[in-house]
Amino acid sequence: MEGSVQCDANYAPLTPLSFLERAALVYGTRTAVVIGERGYSWRETRDRCLAGASALARLGVGRRDVVAVLAANTPAMYELHFSVPMTGGVLCTLNTRHDTSMVSVLLRHSEAKVFLVESQFLAVARDALALLADAGVSLPLLITITDGEVSTEGEPEYEALLRTAPGGFEIRWPADERDPISLNYTSGTTSRPKGVIYSHRGAYLNTLATALSNEMPTMPVYLWTVPMFHCNGWCMVWATAAQGGTSVCMTGSVSPKVVFEKIVRHRVTNMGGAPTVLSMLVNAPASEQRPLPGRVLISTGGAPPPPQVLAKMEELGFNVIHGYGLTETYGPATLCVWKPEWDALPAAERARIRARQGVPHMMLEDVEIKDPVTMASVPSDGHTVGEVMLRGNTVMSGYYKDVAATAEAMHGGWLRSGDLGVRHPDGYIQLKDRSKDIIISGGENISSIEVESALFGHPAVLDAAVVARPDDHWGETPCAFVTLKDGTNATEEEIIGFCRERLPRYMAPRTVVFAELPKTSTGKTQKYLLREKARAMGSLPNQGRSKL
Amino acid sequence: MEGSVQCDANYAPLTPLSFLERAALVYGTRTAVVIGERGYSWRETRDRCLAGASALARLGVGRRDVVAVLAANTPAMYELHFSVPMTGGVLCTLNTRHDTSMVSVLLRHSEAKVFLVESQFLAVARDALALLADAGVSLPLLITITDGEVSTEGEPEYEALLRTAPGGFEIRWPADERDPISLNYTSGTTSRPKGVIYSHRGAYLNTLATALSNEMPTMPVYLWTVPMFHCNGWCMVWATAAQGGTSVCMTGSVSPKVVFEKIVRHRVTNMGGAPTVLSMLVNAPASEQRPLPGRVLISTGGAPPPPQVLAKMEELGFNVIHGYGLTETYGPATLCVWKPEWDALPAAERARIRARQGVPHMMLEDVEIKDPVTMASVPSDGHTVGEVMLRGNTVMSGYYKDVAATAEAMHGGWLRSGDLGVRHPDGYIQLKDRSKDIIISGGENISSIEVESALFGHPAVLDAAVVARPDDHWGETPCAFVTLKDGTNATEEEIIGFCRERLPRYMAPRTVVFAELPKTSTGKTQKYLLREKARAMGSLPNQGRSKL
Repeated sequence: MEGSVQCDANYAPLTPLSFLERAALVYGTRTAVVIGERGYSWRETRDRCLAGASALARLGVGRRDVVAVLAANTPAMYELHFSVPMTGGVLCTLNTRHDTSMVSVLLRHSEAKVFLVESQFLAVARDALALLADAGVSLPLLITITDGEVSTEGEPEYEALLRTAPGGFEIRWPADERDPISLNYTSGTTSRPKGVIYSHRGAYLNTLATALSNEMPTMPVYLWTVPMFHCNGWCMVWATAAQGGTSVCMTGSVSPKVVFEKIVRHRVTNMGGAPTVLSMLVNAPASEQRPLPGRVLISTGGAPPPPQVLAKMEELGFNVIHGYGLTETYGPATLCVWKPEWDALPAAERARIRARQGVPHMMLEDVEIKDPVTMASVPSDGHTVGEVMLRGNTVMSGYYKDVAATAEAMHGGWLRSGDLGVRHPDGYIQLKDRSKDIIISGGENISSIEVESALFGHPAVLDAAVVARPDDHWGETPCAFVTLKDGTNATEEEIIGFCRERLPRYMAPRTVVFAELPKTSTGKTQKYLLREKARAMGSLPNQGRSKL
Repeated sequence: MEGSVQCDANYAPLTPLSFLERAALVYGTRTAVVIGERGYSWRETRDRCLAGASALARLGVGRRDVVAVLAANTPAMYELHFSVPMTGGVLCTLNTRHDTSMVSVLLRHSEAKVFLVESQFLAVARDALALLADAGVSLPLLITITDGEVSTEGEPEYEALLRTAPGGFEIRWPADERDPISLNYTSGTTSRPKGVIYSHRGAYLNTLATALSNEMPTMPVYLWTVPMFHCNGWCMVWATAAQGGTSVCMTGSVSPKVVFEKIVRHRVTNMGGAPTVLSMLVNAPASEQRPLPGRVLISTGGAPPPPQVLAKMEELGFNVIHGYGLTETYGPATLCVWKPEWDALPAAERARIRARQGVPHMMLEDVEIKDPVTMASVPSDGHTVGEVMLRGNTVMSGYYKDVAATAEAMHGGWLRSGDLGVRHPDGYIQLKDRSKDIIISGGENISSIEVESALFGHPAVLDAAVVARPDDHWGETPCAFVTLKDGTNATEEEIIGFCRERLPRYMAPRTVVFAELPKTSTGKTQKYLLREKARAMGSLPNQGRSKL
């Protein structure tokens, strides 16, 4: 319209970096990050981020240069989420469980210019760099994060760099809000990792979605049980800054005892956790469980938590938000928004509803269940299965240096998730399976999730996963891998019988294997490993057939 | 970065229209708008908005066409905030207290194509149209809003249009998120109204800022005491949709009795109110006050509420958020974020802090107190006065058809507010006055706000405003206009004495006039009218001089 202008007064590229400056102003003396007995205020954190950016810039990091990091949830890791983008660079956090070979692959693919590594991962990092050197690839500059200890091989050290960084660094704000802010390699449960590009705009909007959908109060206290390297902590790294929150980091592995202690000590208001973390908390001995100091909202994703676990979490006083997302959607994209009228339902019914993935968050335009061929949406009948497809500003920019994979994933104006689901009459979606996890037995589609849900109802079952076992006659049959709770016992026959009482006969497992389940760093069961095992078992002997 | 793409899957122009579709999906059966005994669910509201857009489009409303509205806070008014932008049109809500002449000026300036008018304002509207006809200006199409009653002069009526609108209307999403969504004429306390252009992007971001800064829970209940025509209800119209909230409208004038009744009946969680509304609530007879059913957060702006009023609001159980903003910033731009460490301070100290305007909200980039000549920021000393300047995505696009005024307001990359303030050492800003309200007496700058604050400490004072009275010797002296509470008494001498005990002698009023204060529709005192009165009084007689 005549009179409209665009200038510095009324336009700034959206970026989560803006939240840090505001946090330093508004919440300056409040704790931003705490680990053990060490804590930094928001003003200190802002100053450390500026120093970090200044040091990185002096080392040559500029616009679109990739800076890789291999670190646990620490203040340094938190700060790099701001300092790297402040240089115009792109943050690439690597999964700390990757082996040498995978680290070298990702360093090479990302063309990282700088590589920051925490002490405990230095051996893996050095071996990965040696692999690159052998291959004649130019090496990133290694910076160690040793919390102030002197590095043994003379590389620059993070704390020392902060101390000696020139002052007065000017933040290099993104020229365009669609500029990249981070590169997140997918967790690789299925295929070779792909580098998902996040933009400043997408990260900004998803940060707000996260704050709102997690009903974060002002000045929340967030307990880091999920790794920051995963989807930039589902954007929680930036959301805590937006709300002036405190990030409580944990050293070592996540145990129920420590989680309850941290919740009480820091008066935690929000946390995240894979379904396995929820299982761990509800199955902890009563002596390790502690009464919650107030409302603790825990957001969970990945596989839907079994109804039994959800019900017990409620009993402990946790407020569970169940969501669903992909690395490609900056983390959670849908959530099961809870309605007050559901409060009066029986516990089992509440848990059943809460296991749904729900509705898109406020910044995602749309989630649909579609026929991948015709692209028609399925009816909202709770039965017709289609592929979950998403679109909106919180969908990735694309896969780094992989135009073909990008085009395939976003074909037709939607992000294809590869997950199968239904839409209920009230509009809420529910996942049925990943496309490749569906078991096809005698022409029937079996959702491995539904079989797992039945298994979790057994009092002795701690963890369970169901995959297809090849079968000469039926094509495939369901094969269950089960971990029993400490001190309990169950036989294959009992487990199968239990399922048959609760499922159509063809859906009940034909095989039960008792074992620990292999997990990704984010707590997802690595079904492809189980599928390999089941495949190696071959077809069931013939005499079993008549039972189906 | 290589691999990045922009397509429908990952980019959608930001617009608050997206919140309506989501509200209909997630909160479909919950009440969206209620007035008296009539209420509409979110699904009904979405359907009514689509029907309204369909009808307007059929009447020829297209992209960038202005649709003017003269209506109180009603479901129709609420719906038009969605249906007009759905056609690509621009909503222009007019102040319902404007007279015929002003309405005709604004219709002409805005070049409105359609004009929707609620029954009670039809006489003014028809007279305004007659003025335009006399001037040979082409007239907008008049649509009456009579809540289903038959219109007497054969114009199309809103409810009838909804009933007969063709189905299947396709929303015309903005092609660019910077496209205009609404046109808000400034309230005209100072000069000829200017048409402030809001964009879809700015409205979207300010909506989120509003939801977050008002700590709106999911499914809030918002009581409409502030007019929707003012800054689109500070974007609350859209924020309630974003959070699946219920808008409680009131018919007739705002009385404490009705406000308390509505709060209790609807379990209100959030509301807004000019400082006069706060005064009204705390000064209401105890028989009209009711215990609050839960936390009620009330956001207030404009002049800082007097400490006494803030303290009494606290006692009643209200949670007051004090903010500051301009029509040019989509409503509130700063807010006094409350820190837990302030809870322990004495009540007077708490009220003193709460009267500050505070810090920018999350979506505004920056607020600075600057020297308007050098553009240098003033020191954070709580004393040095400068002009409040703002910048960020929630600053207007410009003034409609007024390139010169736009350039002047946004000169130098900042929006000039015309308000004077200081910055405290903790970074919070506090208004001192509007530039033109400062009283200059014997070379000293006197903040009219500080004098008013002292006046409000007097137990008999209900309302007060201080302006400059011309003086032959001192240039100007402070002149107080005071409204006393019902059943109280005070003399000019008493009031002046009271102030002299609390202020430097030169700051105390030299004149006190007991009178009702003239207000704008949003509750701001019209100081220019008081200034005219003070000017007409002339200089004080000479014998008063020695006292200064």
